Amino acid sequence: MKLAVTVKMRYDIISSSSVILSILPFKSNKQKVWDEAFQAVPGVTMQEVQAAAGEKRMKIIDVPDAGDITFAFSAKVENEIQAIPSEQLVDVAIPLMPAPVLRYLPPSRYCQSDRLYKFAHHKFGHIPHAFDKVMAVRDWVHENVEYSGGRTNSHTSAFDTITEQVGVCRDFAHLGVALCRALTIPARYFTGYSYQLQPADFHACFEAYLGGHWVLFDATKMVPLNGMAKIATGTDAAETAFASTFGNLHFQEHEVSVKLLDPNFEAVDSTSTTQGYSFF
Amino acid sequence: MKLAVTVKMRYDIISSSSVILSILPFKSNKQKVWDEAFQAVPGVTMQEVQAAAGEKRMKIIDVPDAGDITFAFSAKVENEIQAIPSEQLVDVAIPLMPAPVLRYLPPSRYCQSDRLYKFAHHKFGHIPHAFDKVMAVRDWVHENVEYSGGRTNSHTSAFDTITEQVGVCRDFAHLGVALCRALTIPARYFTGYSYQLQPADFHACFEAYLGGHWVLFDATKMVPLNGMAKIATGTDAAETAFASTFGNLHFQEHEVSVKLLDPNFEAVDSTSTTQGYSFF
Amino acid sequence: MKLAVTVKMRYDIISSSSVILSILPFKSNKQKVWDEAFQAVPGVTMQEVQAAAGEKRMKIIDVPDAGDITFAFSAKVENEIQAIPSEQLVDVAIPLMPAPVLRYLPPSRYCQSDRLYKFAHHKFGHIPHAFDKVMAVRDWVHENVEYSGGRTNSHTSAFDTITEQVGVCRDFAHLGVALCRALTIPARYFTGYSYQLQPADFHACFEAYLGGHWVLFDATKMVPLNGMAKIATGTDAAETAFASTFGNLHFQEHEVSVKLLDPNFEAVDSTSTTQGYSFF
Amino acid sequence: MKLAVTVKMRYDIISSSSVILSILPFKSNKQKVWDEAFQAVPGVTMQEVQAAAGEKRMKIIDVPDAGDITFAFSAKVENEIQAIPSEQLVDVAIPLMPAPVLRYLPPSRYCQSDRLYKFAHHKFGHIPHAFDKVMAVRDWVHENVEYSGGRTNSHTSAFDTITEQVGVCRDFAHLGVALCRALTIPARYFTGYSYQLQPADFHACFEAYLGGHWVLFDATKMVPLNGMAKIATGTDAAETAFASTFGNLHFQEHEVSVKLLDPNFEAVDSTSTTQGYSFF
Repeated sequence: MKLAVTVKMRYDIISSSSVILSILPFKSNKQKVWDEAFQAVPGVTMQEVQAAAGEKRMKIIDVPDAGDITFAFSAKVENEIQAIPSEQLVDVAIPLMPAPVLRYLPPSRYCQSDRLYKFAHHKFGHIPHAFDKVMAVRDWVHENVEYSGGRTNSHTSAFDTITEQVGVCRDFAHLGVALCRALTIPARYFTGYSYQLQPADFHACFEAYLGGHWVLFDATKMVPLNGMAKIATGTDAAETAFASTFGNLHFQEHEVSVKLLDPNFEAVDSTSTTQGYSFF
Repeated sequence: MKLAVTVKMRYDIISSSSVILSILPFKSNKQKVWDEAFQAVPGVTMQEVQAAAGEKRMKIIDVPDAGDITFAFSAKVENEIQAIPSEQLVDVAIPLMPAPVLRYLPPSRYCQSDRLYKFAHHKFGHIPHAFDKVMAVRDWVHENVEYSGGRTNSHTSAFDTITEQVGVCRDFAHLGVALCRALTIPARYFTGYSYQLQPADFHACFEAYLGGHWVLFDATKMVPLNGMAKIATGTDAAETAFASTFGNLHFQEHEVSVKLLDPNFEAVDSTSTTQGYSFF
Repeated sequence: MKLAVTVKMRYDIISSSSVILSILPFKSNKQKVWDEAFQAVPGVTMQEVQAAAGEKRMKIIDVPDAGDITFAFSAKVENEIQAIPSEQLVDVAIPLMPAPVLRYLPPSRYCQSDRLYKFAHHKFGHIPHAFDKVMAVRDWVHENVEYSGGRTNSHTSAFDTITEQVGVCRDFAHLGVALCRALTIPARYFTGYSYQLQPADFHACFEAYLGGHWVLFDATKMVPLNGMAKIATGTDAAETAFASTFGNLHFQEHEVSVKLLDPNFEAVDSTSTTQGYSFF
Repeated sequence: MKLAVTVKMRYDIISSSSVILSILPFKSNKQKVWDEAFQAVPGVTMQEVQAAAGEKRMKIIDVPDAGDITFAFSAKVENEIQAIPSEQLVDVAIPLMPAPVLRYLPPSRYCQSDRLYKFAHHKFGHIPHAFDKVMAVRDWVHENVEYSGGRTNSHTSAFDTITEQVGVCRDFAHLGVALCRALTIPARYFTGYSYQLQPADFHACFEAYLGGHWVLFDATKMVPLNGMAKIATGTDAAETAFASTFGNLHFQEHEVSVKLLDPNFEAVDSTSTTQGYSFF
């Protein structure tokens, strides 16, 4: 699938500040990124850095002067999703998990799986097959959490959402991650650009480690699983924030556009119980 | 400084389980580890793995059979602490932080710095020098939090401790980490063996990134900073748990001993305001 | 049903303190209390006061001197439970609720019904009949929360228990209360002495306001509903604490005994779906 | 002091609902209320009820039909504040507290004093005089909590605010109440109309029980203490909500006006350390 994405972000700088943006599509042998352009107006010093943990590219930007600043980014992305028969998407034993996978088992800031064990086991523990378990997690989150903007904030975590049952894609993904980890299934938070999201914006999903694959799930069920470009994966939104700011500045607005470049794109069936989908 | 350490941990296995122990001293060119012995009785399959994020060695152990199992570990460790004049221990600008340091800025499971900004800035924001700031954090935690076992548990986080003001070394360290991060000072959780801890046990401290060094602070003030052997550093106790267990088993007991091998050991002055100490 | 109850409570007084005990059986025209004896050794000044809100009697005790003090209480109690056909136990419209009932609708310290609306409505909102709704609440709590001492404390609330799903009678009752209130059913916390509790101790249940009656429910299902003597009802354990202490003192131990005086006592069937039971 | 107050509240009723409004000024021998008019357009059935606990008057309103409904209320109020020399505003011993005062000692939904003991004692425990203690509480809240709308919501409690340090009058008052109770000083939440509040709105303060009086404190320091008309006092906002709604309806907007009828009104000096002020 091929997408063209653009982002504009505007800040009001009160005094010398730093901004870290994680909005660049991740580059890997599974995802090609080209025609990238990143511009700040007015111009400032910046560098690009690969995260030390999790998978993301960061623009680290030094903004010395007060005033409005706008960041404009555009790129083209191509990736391919892999369909995997669900019978292969089994539990992986702890001793067979590679070290980079093991770090997605413990609780994190927004995914307090340590407090969700009993809930998760009562609700999903009886389901024998791992893929079915995660599908049931996804469906439970979808059915019980109301999608509604402006009722959660940057402090809201899975422990809140499991009971308060309202939120946006970020909250849906955190709860999916936390429930999987409580079931001893490594899970990570996925951010990306998504075709067909209305209105266009960044999106968040989650991935569960099944049968040796990172399998993608979207508890919001708002977009086709193969219509996304990955920006980052990490433990949760704390590790993959689109923007982190330091200093004295105010966020003003952002604008995202996502255009399909693929005339023959066909959305995969995200409700399929016979196969899962993996990007990376 | 040279230490000889031993640990015994006993579990009651109900049915086939896995255990990940992070109790091996970290090996680096700053810390030598030798004469290591790790034994399970009865014998089981195990492997040693280096963590993918944070710094720790893991023993990943497969316990197929029900019954009691005892892990016994012993080693000798040598390291040297570095004294750094406090005037060098300055704030590092965001664009100058290496990627492996940047991951110690966001909030984590037990260190919700995102909820502590105002508190941290009211209390410590006026202190101009970064090292003095962290010393003030350490002193505030020491003076306000009562050291008392059994009143916190594995769910207790810095957000609880800042108000409830009671806990053990783990809680002291989490609060130190969270306050530093809220002040835009990267901070990580440090676990180790410690000379002079009464009773002997694992210990936890925190490190702040100052002037390009990871500087060690112990808000409990119970042990000499140069009397420790590092086991792990990570975002918090979720990333550096001494033991993670999966399956059906019960922890029974553990026993730690730490012996000084250094006849001429002299404790550094941890209250010094003119220099900080860095292991690694 | 007739019970003979005794309680002993021992405190270590460090310096002049006050203690409020709410352990006396409530007196009303529905519950007779006689042969009451309350003794402090050594002797101290005390008074008996009726609570201004909620229903409870308080012994307010002034302990001027350091040292051990023991309170010994004994009484005989008789009450009668009323069986009410469940078809009468309907929702009461807000305008028909008396003022003393209305105060059991809002959230309280341990029963944060304001955060449980969606959960309660997803789980129980579809059940048409009010009594059946509360029975379903009771059964859900019973089935999902593990009864286990020492894993919750005096800070644990319904918002914790709904997800962490472990606790004692206090936690079961708080969650029952909170879920009812979230369903716009007034509910209050009930403390009492209970026949057949093993080991003998104080007990906690909850009452829901249905069809104009306060109907008793025990989510622990450990005791016969008609085998209890009411001590207090209130918004939650904050309003009906067995003991509140002020000053410098330590609780040492308590001991409760409950003896049936009724040779022909027959436990009612607490699982009955055709009738509810009301004390008061 | 004499005020004329008006309120308009508008709801969009989706289907048959009930509304309880606690916006009528409290009537007592300390506060005269006259020229009251309460109108609903379109007309509906309503009754006025006095609360069973706490002090408030409730309009309980039955709204059978879908559509917009507007409540309009107006009244005139007169009361007099009493200045009390601060040396009389002492700690009251527990055995001397009347039962209606004792209920303001335990924690409540938004005032979790049970979790604030150590914080309160570290910060304020050394202050010998009770009135000075509460003044210090008021000042600490004022200096550390930023007044800012839209950053807290109806779930925000004192336990959040003590660390997050941002909120509106409701949050300031909850924190004041919780800190007093943690210091064994009974405290209650006060709602009222307030002269000079910009923009005009309902206001919230707190009262501490000192020397046998309910003494008024306003941690926002936004209005003169003698420029208020009391609506309600209670354990916290859960007990004194301006509006509680049941059914399917949406709040649209409200509008408050407060006019001084007293040409010679003189604001008392709320910063005075030599006297406290008590309404009731």
